Amino acid sequence: MGAGSTVIVVMAGGKGTRFWPRSRERRPKQFLPILGERNLLAQTVDRVLPTFGPERIFIATTTELAEETRRLLPELPPDNVIAEPEGRNTAPCLALALVHIARKRPDAVMAVLSADHWIGDEPRFLEDLDLAARHAAGTGDLVTFGIPPAYPETGYGYIETEGEGPVRRVAAFREKPPLETALAYAASGRHFWNAGMFVWRLDAFREELRAHAPAVLDPLEAWASAGALPGDLPAAYARTEATSIDYALLERSRRVAAIPARFRWSDVGSWPALLDFHEKDAAGNIVRGDAVLVEARDCAVFGGARLVALAGVEDLIVVDEPDALLVTRRDRAQGVKQVVDELKRRGRKDLL
Amino acid sequence: MGAGSTVIVVMAGGKGTRFWPRSRERRPKQFLPILGERNLLAQTVDRVLPTFGPERIFIATTTELAEETRRLLPELPPDNVIAEPEGRNTAPCLALALVHIARKRPDAVMAVLSADHWIGDEPRFLEDLDLAARHAAGTGDLVTFGIPPAYPETGYGYIETEGEGPVRRVAAFREKPPLETALAYAASGRHFWNAGMFVWRLDAFREELRAHAPAVLDPLEAWASAGALPGDLPAAYARTEATSIDYALLERSRRVAAIPARFRWSDVGSWPALLDFHEKDAAGNIVRGDAVLVEARDCAVFGGARLVALAGVEDLIVVDEPDALLVTRRDRAQGVKQVVDELKRRGRKDLL
Repeated sequence: MGAGSTVIVVMAGGKGTRFWPRSRERRPKQFLPILGERNLLAQTVDRVLPTFGPERIFIATTTELAEETRRLLPELPPDNVIAEPEGRNTAPCLALALVHIARKRPDAVMAVLSADHWIGDEPRFLEDLDLAARHAAGTGDLVTFGIPPAYPETGYGYIETEGEGPVRRVAAFREKPPLETALAYAASGRHFWNAGMFVWRLDAFREELRAHAPAVLDPLEAWASAGALPGDLPAAYARTEATSIDYALLERSRRVAAIPARFRWSDVGSWPALLDFHEKDAAGNIVRGDAVLVEARDCAVFGGARLVALAGVEDLIVVDEPDALLVTRRDRAQGVKQVVDELKRRGRKDLL
Repeated sequence: MGAGSTVIVVMAGGKGTRFWPRSRERRPKQFLPILGERNLLAQTVDRVLPTFGPERIFIATTTELAEETRRLLPELPPDNVIAEPEGRNTAPCLALALVHIARKRPDAVMAVLSADHWIGDEPRFLEDLDLAARHAAGTGDLVTFGIPPAYPETGYGYIETEGEGPVRRVAAFREKPPLETALAYAASGRHFWNAGMFVWRLDAFREELRAHAPAVLDPLEAWASAGALPGDLPAAYARTEATSIDYALLERSRRVAAIPARFRWSDVGSWPALLDFHEKDAAGNIVRGDAVLVEARDCAVFGGARLVALAGVEDLIVVDEPDALLVTRRDRAQGVKQVVDELKRRGRKDLL
């Protein structure tokens, strides 16, 4: 059992404020061409389209973003864009995808991907995906991908595995660790970054949700049994427990396996993370758009229509949009979130 | 002899690139409201208008800027805006003003001011101006104002004086000094910044130019003798020696006196110099326009129509214009000149 019965579910409902001012509520990170010519969502679909075909690729997103998502992905059947009536975290989102897909493909394996991550070495990625699908199909396991830690990141959750080999048992999910713990994890060979990518059989996923997260599943199953009328979905969805799939299911199920990824991965989670993906000039600068740099070092300019001039500055990230400009330091870009919070506080919907 | 026979000549032909991107060739510093609501040229005229009246205030500028200058100063007779056919430094500019004014007011005293400087304590300034005019009228001296050095500036020329009292003999003009010399000058009590403001009788000015700088004066006197036809001025002006009044005259004449200024003065020569004139918030920041600052310290935002967000940055100056943006450090803003030079090299007339 391989790609033939596997469907892809791309989670694409993220709002992501960390790429402000380029990202906005109506133009989230997955819609942006911040890596290459195509937006991240399209790149995610491109990656799996030749193997799986358009009929078996689904996008889970919010009602607000559904129309634009369909416009950006004309190759997919419009009905394959599943619209959450409201954001209630990942568990209800994936339960809705389950109910949606199971009507036509009850025997499928479902592979859950993120719309706004970067994947390197795509052939290996497809091989790992196939391995996961075959393992999930054969065993009923909930399969996660574990990313070998490139460094002791304290901002990710970790998967603690047991044993050796390409598919391993999961001993525990570990919360974002303090630095000392992260250092130990990065050295252990048993700990992996939890990249939020999952592969499971629909029936196994349903069974495990029933066992561990009925408050997530039950309202949607009741809705489906009553005819799955679109007009009834918002009320049903509002009754689901708003929680993450990690917390509701993966940390509780005893049927979780992990595959150490052989592909490369990044969540490209912030402006500084993006810098790793751009070529730098001799002074360490990255320039997109019209710019003049004088005695500037290790700076990045993501410009727009206007000229950006830097003189005698270092380590800055400058992002220029027609209605807003961001200047931050590459080592202090977490402040972008506070900028967005302040704009919310000021009621500046025009800039959110 | 006082204000009654004194005319003001405001030198307003400067191009000044140091306030780019706000200043441009057609919108030089003197046209900008960078200190308060009114532009610097209008403030300069406002300062002397009540005392001298519009008929006795002249503006010397370039042909390119003459029309806009008249528009900005509707209170002055249009003929009082004297247009240099081309920029040939300050000596031909002031010789042209001499010839222009002498036709109607041969007995006047002429006080030369700059269009883009800041003057503090205006009553004292007017007192010093009156003192200078009376001294110049009574003696025929070429009177300069010397600014008591506030710190050992190495970017200005200095006037070395002899004796004591409110009007002193000038022993020498000193070029921009190295730091050690500037330290000695600042401590001496005998050295003053040369602010480029002068007061002299027209006849004394003519005599001294004839004696020391005939190559500056002769083409213009010949033009005046031949009827002062406007169409003949460009050719006559092109024959004048392009040189500064300091070099051509003041460093050579033996009739130069200096008045230590009792008013306050700044040439507001750069973005960092401008910061001294703005109130700072508790974190040392200055904000003009729409901005959000998060963990920003000692920064200045001169914004425009768009929101400017700073996050986790220090000591920056950000200047936002519709077609260009500058980010520099307050201690390295001399790089602004290099930015402008680079734009010239690239042929970016749209931004100059």
